[in-house]
Amino acid sequence: MKRMLLTNVGELVTNDPAPDRDGGPLGIVRDAAVLVEDGRITWIGPAAHVPSHDDELRHEREQRRDGEEHRSLWDADVEVVDAGGRAVFPGFVDSHTHLVFGGDRAEEFAARMAGRRYEAGGIRSTVAATRAATDDELRARLAGFVAELHAQGTTTFEVKSGYGLSVRDEERIVRLAREVTDEVTFLGAHVVPADYADPAGDPGTGADAYVDLVVGEMLEACAPHAKWIDAFCERGAFTAEQSRRVLEAGAAMGLGVRVHGNQLGAGDGVRLAIELGAASVDHCTYLDDPEVAALAASDTVATLLPGVEFSTRQPYPDARRLIDAGVTVALASDCNPGSSFTSSMPFCIAVAVRDMGMTPAEALWASTAGGATALRRTDVGAIRPGGPADLVLLDAPSHVHLAYRPGVPLIARVWKDGEVVAS
Amino acid sequence: MKRMLLTNVGELVTNDPAPDRDGGPLGIVRDAAVLVEDGRITWIGPAAHVPSHDDELRHEREQRRDGEEHRSLWDADVEVVDAGGRAVFPGFVDSHTHLVFGGDRAEEFAARMAGRRYEAGGIRSTVAATRAATDDELRARLAGFVAELHAQGTTTFEVKSGYGLSVRDEERIVRLAREVTDEVTFLGAHVVPADYADPAGDPGTGADAYVDLVVGEMLEACAPHAKWIDAFCERGAFTAEQSRRVLEAGAAMGLGVRVHGNQLGAGDGVRLAIELGAASVDHCTYLDDPEVAALAASDTVATLLPGVEFSTRQPYPDARRLIDAGVTVALASDCNPGSSFTSSMPFCIAVAVRDMGMTPAEALWASTAGGATALRRTDVGAIRPGGPADLVLLDAPSHVHLAYRPGVPLIARVWKDGEVVAS
Ligand SMILES: [Zn+2]
Ligand SMILES: [Zn+2]
Repeated sequence: MKRMLLTNVGELVTNDPAPDRDGGPLGIVRDAAVLVEDGRITWIGPAAHVPSHDDELRHEREQRRDGEEHRSLWDADVEVVDAGGRAVFPGFVDSHTHLVFGGDRAEEFAARMAGRRYEAGGIRSTVAATRAATDDELRARLAGFVAELHAQGTTTFEVKSGYGLSVRDEERIVRLAREVTDEVTFLGAHVVPADYADPAGDPGTGADAYVDLVVGEMLEACAPHAKWIDAFCERGAFTAEQSRRVLEAGAAMGLGVRVHGNQLGAGDGVRLAIELGAASVDHCTYLDDPEVAALAASDTVATLLPGVEFSTRQPYPDARRLIDAGVTVALASDCNPGSSFTSSMPFCIAVAVRDMGMTPAEALWASTAGGATALRRTDVGAIRPGGPADLVLLDAPSHVHLAYRPGVPLIARVWKDGEVVAS
Repeated sequence: MKRMLLTNVGELVTNDPAPDRDGGPLGIVRDAAVLVEDGRITWIGPAAHVPSHDDELRHEREQRRDGEEHRSLWDADVEVVDAGGRAVFPGFVDSHTHLVFGGDRAEEFAARMAGRRYEAGGIRSTVAATRAATDDELRARLAGFVAELHAQGTTTFEVKSGYGLSVRDEERIVRLAREVTDEVTFLGAHVVPADYADPAGDPGTGADAYVDLVVGEMLEACAPHAKWIDAFCERGAFTAEQSRRVLEAGAAMGLGVRVHGNQLGAGDGVRLAIELGAASVDHCTYLDDPEVAALAASDTVATLLPGVEFSTRQPYPDARRLIDAGVTVALASDCNPGSSFTSSMPFCIAVAVRDMGMTPAEALWASTAGGATALRRTDVGAIRPGGPADLVLLDAPSHVHLAYRPGVPLIARVWKDGEVVAS
């Protein structure tokens, strides 16, 4: 058995409120220790309750004298990690990324920031670069992003397709994504590809023909690799009816439902998501009061993506309003080369606190337990006995520093299933 | 002689516009190489112009045949570093920090973000913690910050005093700061300490008595360790007359002038800075048109500190207006435990682009050459033959990624005077 004792943790954020804890949703234990055995958490408690080596030796002598068999925490195989009074929290759960793509769009970004038009950009340029890339090129790029996620404390992440937009390329993307995560989302309905644009300017015909492909041959090819179906229900992307066709076809194949909606204006995304029992509806910038109330009464998480508004200079969604109404809020990176090329959950937390009205505690919860809820996962996003040892050691005494020290790389060490994946 | 050849640099930002370069202020050379000898840059040019090892061997044979002495780039002592097509730029010059202090104010920050009052906070709580810390405690903390700065690409930084506010403690701070940087600023006039508060509520008497101390015994103790004098000229801190007394006394002792001004409202800071020939006036959020024009006509740099507005939810200064008027703009972190606890220049760049109207190129220039100008330094902030090899290798093909990928730790390697200080 492989064992690790992580001790002298100044602030342990468990996301598991319990009677002996601080009372908040973060379930904080001060001066804590965590025992990890074969990649799983087996004990959490005050560091002072960890038996010292001397105690153990005395106890062993007593047991030997009494003829009992001794099993000590201090067997040779226990690795003791001293957190030095610093904070430990559950690995981030980033429930919304688009990490399989070719090229980047730095010039488009620079032009946008300078207020210039940039004709060569847009999703379609990424689609062209993705289609042109080999499997191995996409795989190498993806591996780089996974290392980046780990280095920033993310231990569970979702990956969406959507830069292939052909049967061959969407299948490649979900297949490659599946090599690095269980949380794969088929997003063939990301945008209507250029090859389906209406020849005579007849609106909708091309999009409908493309949706036929998505719910037919493309879904059939992608569903075996995917866990989720998603659609971009927004003016300029897919209508409510088109989105519904896609989502219902995916659900019929056993995929869970997620929706991109209400990002750029009022729309049908949130209502559709709730009606279809989606795990999450993502963006949620433009909501009316009935939509907020419906979200609060549903099991659908509102996933907010501060990197998008930061990188496009658009208005931020109002997390405060959602939380106060009782909506479950998650934060995710939406890492993609067009609208949000950050993979940093600490950055998302800092922006959510600055510009979306969240407290540091709410933002951390939304980035861990909230992300897990958005993926309908009960195993990750918390630190509790029986769960996987997905842990982040912060180079600071408190989780508050994630927002208090924006941009500073404070992630000191990261464990996924008890293995160090970044340090 | 110790030599390094940094080659295969996809984008070399020199900040040294030259006829063979791209025409912008960044003086970009594509597919470049940099030769470093004993910590100094001795050659910059296209990577293709670096003689290959084979060329050199052939040349050596020819020279030997001709009886000449051979000196090859490819002697055994040259270290070749392949940048892999990535970007390299000059180390950041952070011209405004307050890095010598005790304690932190995370609880005050969290309360502010939650909209709660927090009575125990403020500069005075940091003053108390700083006075209570030993030299070695402050030194260890400072060493941690220096490592943090290096890891984020900062190779030159200024450090201000201002959390001692007694002769003994201000002297300790500038002395300790001088152990890690040449750019030390005496900021005794940071705030009137509690022990000088007016007993009978008589405004100004206590402050005047404190200024007497600052320009007398305190300046005498601190000046030998400092290069700069600074004053916080703002309502609630020091008046124009008090600030002038401090700055003129410092100048008379040979110190260069810097000013904190126009942060929280209109004020006299900018006018005073220009009149006294200050190297920089810092904050500059509230400026009228004559002040902007006066700055543009002066040698005083406007140093903007986006971390402050980010962390206090205050309005950002308008960098666009200043640049368009011809003002020289620098960006700095203002790293301090109260209003801006970031030490990340990449973060400052991302926010300046998002919220202050700067282009990625302007923000990078302001963080390197701009910071150097704010410190009246001509050696740092650029990559040019004869200068120190203060270099940052970015894990991205372009400097644009500093803003395009906010929060992502992209700093791959950092050299200060040719030595690796972070990797
Ligand atoms: Zn998305
Ligand atoms: Zn300052």
